[in-house]
Amino acid sequence: MAKSLNLGMIGYGFMGRAHSNAYRKVNHFFDLEYRPVLKAICARDASKAEAFAKNWGYESVETDWRKLVERPDIDVIDICTPNNLHHEIALAAARAGKMILCEKPLAMNSQEGAEMVEAVEKAGVANMVWYNYRRLPAVALAKKLVEQGRLGRIFHYRAVFLQDWTISADLPQGGAALWRLDAAAAGSGVTGDLLAHCIDTALWINGGIERVTAMTETFVKERKHNLTGKVEPVGIDDACAFLARFKNGSLATFESTRYARGHKALYTFEINGEKASIQWDLLDLHRLSYFDHRDESGLRGWRSIHVTDGEHPYMSHWWVPGLQIGYEHSFVHQVADFLEGLAQKIPASPTFRDALETQQVCDAVLRSAKSGEWVAVK
Amino acid sequence: MAKSLNLGMIGYGFMGRAHSNAYRKVNHFFDLEYRPVLKAICARDASKAEAFAKNWGYESVETDWRKLVERPDIDVIDICTPNNLHHEIALAAARAGKMILCEKPLAMNSQEGAEMVEAVEKAGVANMVWYNYRRLPAVALAKKLVEQGRLGRIFHYRAVFLQDWTISADLPQGGAALWRLDAAAAGSGVTGDLLAHCIDTALWINGGIERVTAMTETFVKERKHNLTGKVEPVGIDDACAFLARFKNGSLATFESTRYARGHKALYTFEINGEKASIQWDLLDLHRLSYFDHRDESGLRGWRSIHVTDGEHPYMSHWWVPGLQIGYEHSFVHQVADFLEGLAQKIPASPTFRDALETQQVCDAVLRSAKSGEWVAVK
Amino acid sequence: MAKSLNLGMIGYGFMGRAHSNAYRKVNHFFDLEYRPVLKAICARDASKAEAFAKNWGYESVETDWRKLVERPDIDVIDICTPNNLHHEIALAAARAGKMILCEKPLAMNSQEGAEMVEAVEKAGVANMVWYNYRRLPAVALAKKLVEQGRLGRIFHYRAVFLQDWTISADLPQGGAALWRLDAAAAGSGVTGDLLAHCIDTALWINGGIERVTAMTETFVKERKHNLTGKVEPVGIDDACAFLARFKNGSLATFESTRYARGHKALYTFEINGEKASIQWDLLDLHRLSYFDHRDESGLRGWRSIHVTDGEHPYMSHWWVPGLQIGYEHSFVHQVADFLEGLAQKIPASPTFRDALETQQVCDAVLRSAKSGEWVAVK
Amino acid sequence: MAKSLNLGMIGYGFMGRAHSNAYRKVNHFFDLEYRPVLKAICARDASKAEAFAKNWGYESVETDWRKLVERPDIDVIDICTPNNLHHEIALAAARAGKMILCEKPLAMNSQEGAEMVEAVEKAGVANMVWYNYRRLPAVALAKKLVEQGRLGRIFHYRAVFLQDWTISADLPQGGAALWRLDAAAAGSGVTGDLLAHCIDTALWINGGIERVTAMTETFVKERKHNLTGKVEPVGIDDACAFLARFKNGSLATFESTRYARGHKALYTFEINGEKASIQWDLLDLHRLSYFDHRDESGLRGWRSIHVTDGEHPYMSHWWVPGLQIGYEHSFVHQVADFLEGLAQKIPASPTFRDALETQQVCDAVLRSAKSGEWVAVK
Repeated sequence: MAKSLNLGMIGYGFMGRAHSNAYRKVNHFFDLEYRPVLKAICARDASKAEAFAKNWGYESVETDWRKLVERPDIDVIDICTPNNLHHEIALAAARAGKMILCEKPLAMNSQEGAEMVEAVEKAGVANMVWYNYRRLPAVALAKKLVEQGRLGRIFHYRAVFLQDWTISADLPQGGAALWRLDAAAAGSGVTGDLLAHCIDTALWINGGIERVTAMTETFVKERKHNLTGKVEPVGIDDACAFLARFKNGSLATFESTRYARGHKALYTFEINGEKASIQWDLLDLHRLSYFDHRDESGLRGWRSIHVTDGEHPYMSHWWVPGLQIGYEHSFVHQVADFLEGLAQKIPASPTFRDALETQQVCDAVLRSAKSGEWVAVK
Repeated sequence: MAKSLNLGMIGYGFMGRAHSNAYRKVNHFFDLEYRPVLKAICARDASKAEAFAKNWGYESVETDWRKLVERPDIDVIDICTPNNLHHEIALAAARAGKMILCEKPLAMNSQEGAEMVEAVEKAGVANMVWYNYRRLPAVALAKKLVEQGRLGRIFHYRAVFLQDWTISADLPQGGAALWRLDAAAAGSGVTGDLLAHCIDTALWINGGIERVTAMTETFVKERKHNLTGKVEPVGIDDACAFLARFKNGSLATFESTRYARGHKALYTFEINGEKASIQWDLLDLHRLSYFDHRDESGLRGWRSIHVTDGEHPYMSHWWVPGLQIGYEHSFVHQVADFLEGLAQKIPASPTFRDALETQQVCDAVLRSAKSGEWVAVK
Repeated sequence: MAKSLNLGMIGYGFMGRAHSNAYRKVNHFFDLEYRPVLKAICARDASKAEAFAKNWGYESVETDWRKLVERPDIDVIDICTPNNLHHEIALAAARAGKMILCEKPLAMNSQEGAEMVEAVEKAGVANMVWYNYRRLPAVALAKKLVEQGRLGRIFHYRAVFLQDWTISADLPQGGAALWRLDAAAAGSGVTGDLLAHCIDTALWINGGIERVTAMTETFVKERKHNLTGKVEPVGIDDACAFLARFKNGSLATFESTRYARGHKALYTFEINGEKASIQWDLLDLHRLSYFDHRDESGLRGWRSIHVTDGEHPYMSHWWVPGLQIGYEHSFVHQVADFLEGLAQKIPASPTFRDALETQQVCDAVLRSAKSGEWVAVK
Repeated sequence: MAKSLNLGMIGYGFMGRAHSNAYRKVNHFFDLEYRPVLKAICARDASKAEAFAKNWGYESVETDWRKLVERPDIDVIDICTPNNLHHEIALAAARAGKMILCEKPLAMNSQEGAEMVEAVEKAGVANMVWYNYRRLPAVALAKKLVEQGRLGRIFHYRAVFLQDWTISADLPQGGAALWRLDAAAAGSGVTGDLLAHCIDTALWINGGIERVTAMTETFVKERKHNLTGKVEPVGIDDACAFLARFKNGSLATFESTRYARGHKALYTFEINGEKASIQWDLLDLHRLSYFDHRDESGLRGWRSIHVTDGEHPYMSHWWVPGLQIGYEHSFVHQVADFLEGLAQKIPASPTFRDALETQQVCDAVLRSAKSGEWVAVK
């Protein structure tokens, strides 16, 4: 019989749903020593929290996260709040000896992030950040191929994360659904929201980034604020692009925007190595494109690998070859890996410490965008 | 509070898992009057049934489907057995006044199918067949576009379902995982297994088929049989192709095989109308290709619609635009539609009667393949 | 210095231009013993023939093909007329001892075709039919891969040629640009015009066809005739689909139509073998898709081969890797092969005899479409 | 009768062939007032020049470009030499009152380029630079769509030009085929060779660039030099990426490399506007991808426009819809436009002055790569 792991989740938005679904599904598909128990959901709005609890089967509701963090029956705190609360909650939870799962980006900035790392490491509690794209089978396969040395020396890395949902100047900022447009709640715009994903994947697969030069832009300078009711300056970056040099000598370009008409969530990356190259695209998340120069001359071509076979990462747990899984499964995999990590006493990645590195790149990017200069990471 | 609907499932294979997952997820994502309760799982092998029950949370286990069918606490029987048991179970379940969900194809042949239709209609019990692909958002969108008359007069329909998993002559036939290769259990090969899906979609979107001419082939003539331990003739069709004429005057080609190297589950269809055309591909199930001749001249092209917006069929229940769902969600949608149908007292399609039509086309196809002549459907 | 080969071309339409361009280009890119000389163009309309001659540099003009055929300074007759003239011209040209290049399809039917074969073989003159798609590098590569046995035993062949240019009922039939819609000039509709290409490629790559069952349809039953000025019945097939069995045991589907909205010239074929599969698409003529089951497990995928490297068929004669050639180059290659064949005294394919086989399949298809029965080829 | 325009070409490499082919074809497909006459080819190696002349039909051969430039029977000088000779030849040709067609990039640097502009403008001679990609139908269509304002305000531009042909460290530098790797002959590496194309297209379609920040890398630091026979430092940039801000407020990323394994000539660009977006890819040069937000909601998608209809730019001169042209046709179109410009007395673009702007961006990019700072263009 699986051991119970009691969860208390703070926040019930998009990520609250994605995590809850993962907790409820994981043991049906993965044979694990631990089983998450949905002990409590916490949100300021009691009636919304109640409805959420009822829908997902949370046993109780809290409206004050401080109380949740102190509850002795809670093993794990899952932080799904806007970014500006990550730091305070994480510090309290660590103090209370709770394991912590935190939505990305880790914090508002590296300073906060460093304190969070210190807190969890000092408390000795398990910790993980929800950079879920690592757990998509095609991305995990990309990581594996690079690790196996199949690409040889890496020359280039390029990634974009393109969206188009904020083009209208009539869209307000702030509040429940739109806190991502409010600098006070989000810290930054696309840098922390989207590029952070690209950076996390890149660091994981291609190692550390040495330095960057960046530019940012805010195309719509003012938007009505949902909390104040007034038109206020927009403090976030609508778009950000940067050049980077990795420690392994490879060159990179990164770009993100919410003004790329026609792209809902085009997260792509490409890696060019001496012997092979890799491409991936979130909009067709179950495919990995792979070019291997060692293929017979005259028959070389980019292979479109439909990453749905039993031998592909995570896929033996699901259906049969050719039948694809979706976005939500990345969270199921991440929970499975976290629980497996607990059983094996090997921290599942990315830990707070891993995620701090991403935060440091984000900070360097934003500093460079201001100064116009190359900025060393850290 | 949702009303309980007590389920008894027979069979625990690939489809047993797919259905169980759907039952457990549906109320988290759809606001419904009914809630499925996993009352009992039934299978001959008690220990495997126990394990399955424990994994998915079934409350009880039966090893004799006759007992299950008689249990007064069961509202719905879900038939996930090999095809040769559909008929007998369905008749008994109808007699016992149970609602029936039956895996596809409906039966071993039209004769059986007709008796099943008669049984459920006489008993007045809700009934549905698991042609799940109707519930993929892109397929549902295709149906909607045709219904809206956007394609105008239909000229052509073409569909293929290509796999490559039985090419090896060393693969045995029969038994748990391989009953689909055993004519005694499956009735037919690709015709009932794969073409039945293509036909169901076609009938749904393009109306009735008038007549067909077909060919079938069994490439590997003998395989070891898992039940007898001996090499025995292969009775199923490895490949089947047919030409068809629809009642609306359109022409069609259909083809299926398990010998198309490189294709794991390539189910595609295309419809060409006077004003517009549509293409779909299961391997990229979240996309619909659409060509509209009314687009401005010089700018016409096939549009790749990423069917993941809130306004696309079913998608408002899931994540955000650009984030895709997978194969398993078609079952969730079908359960949701069945439950909604119960609440609204409108039968969810395809009913047994709908599925009988597909069976009749399959029968005509197999008859034509033998006779070498055009065969009228029914 | 290259030897001159004096050409007399009959017809100046679409094909007249394509051939003329090929004759003018071929020696710039291929090192050949022979050099075509544009000696004469022949057409009934003298002023149009003059204009054509001036544009392309033909030295003289004829308005009666019988005179051209008798001219002692002509070595080769190139027949670019509507189909109904191929037979008569070819017989006369053979009688006059001319080499003959004939547009496809070879003839109005097999009977005519057989007489043409007899005529050229009796006369001992070089002869070739313009099934130009054999000379596209990607198609030639496909042929080579099959010949090398890379696919192993062939299970399936499927081909379509889809267009949409005749959907409008207002389009007239007959006359200069529209003789393809006039049964008297064209013999058949899509069968001779488009399927003939598909069949030629198939016979070349996959060997002989044993028998077929077919259906045809004429969606628009009457069209104004440009020659009579009256609305007249349409005698051609607008669409044709057939099932086939090849001599090597493989199964095939073929389909062609001019009513597939959204397709301008979608000629695709796919071949599935035991070990590998191939796909090709005229709309991206420089790519060959190739799946090889011998690729490492977990990394298999369809390779998109950009057939533009120096080692790919014909490509060393053109530019640099990645830079593509187009449709017209297939004719340049066919001329080059014909000239090379002359020098080597090895007939370039397809000869009249090769093309007769395609004609025989077309005839069987049309007979089957009438009788509703399987028809053996020949 | 068309007026003769006497051409003298200097250089007979890859570009010499591409231009010669264009000169020989253009009047067959375009109805023009002028007709190029291949008067003379000039190259230091007399026997190679003779062979080239014979193959392409040049009437005479020169081995000293100064003599060619002085010949009174020459109207136009076409400069197809390595970059380090453009300046000197162009100045001499302008002095001699010749029209000048010059291969790209215009010069080794902006200083040279400015002098060349001054020379041709002072001499009042027609001049053009061979940025041929402007003349591909899909690129010309992109330009037209932007000009028509269909994209609305432009937010983003991104372009890459990726190759993989210099990855091997064994490849030497310098000499006939490899002057592009020799800084003394080429000036720069990918910046002048590949990015120059990207920049030219961008300036043409999206207007001027204000400032840039760049990085370059030379992955292989030393290569054997074909001229000296010794291993020598590599002076060119193997890879270059830069961020840019356009005058219209849009943000851009540009990248080029010869170390992107799997890419032979992947030149792609994308433009994101408020209302619509555009993508193009040289490897499928006949397609334009277009997303229009004004399409009906729920049916929006990227359209793949097969730019081969008669109404598409340049295509009425070629074959029929669906049949594609290739790389070489861009040169035919450029010659046609140049000749048409002569007739209309409207300079065909890009003129030397237009190309100088591209040179200035290249210079700014290379300066920024050295300084690590943002550099204003010009």
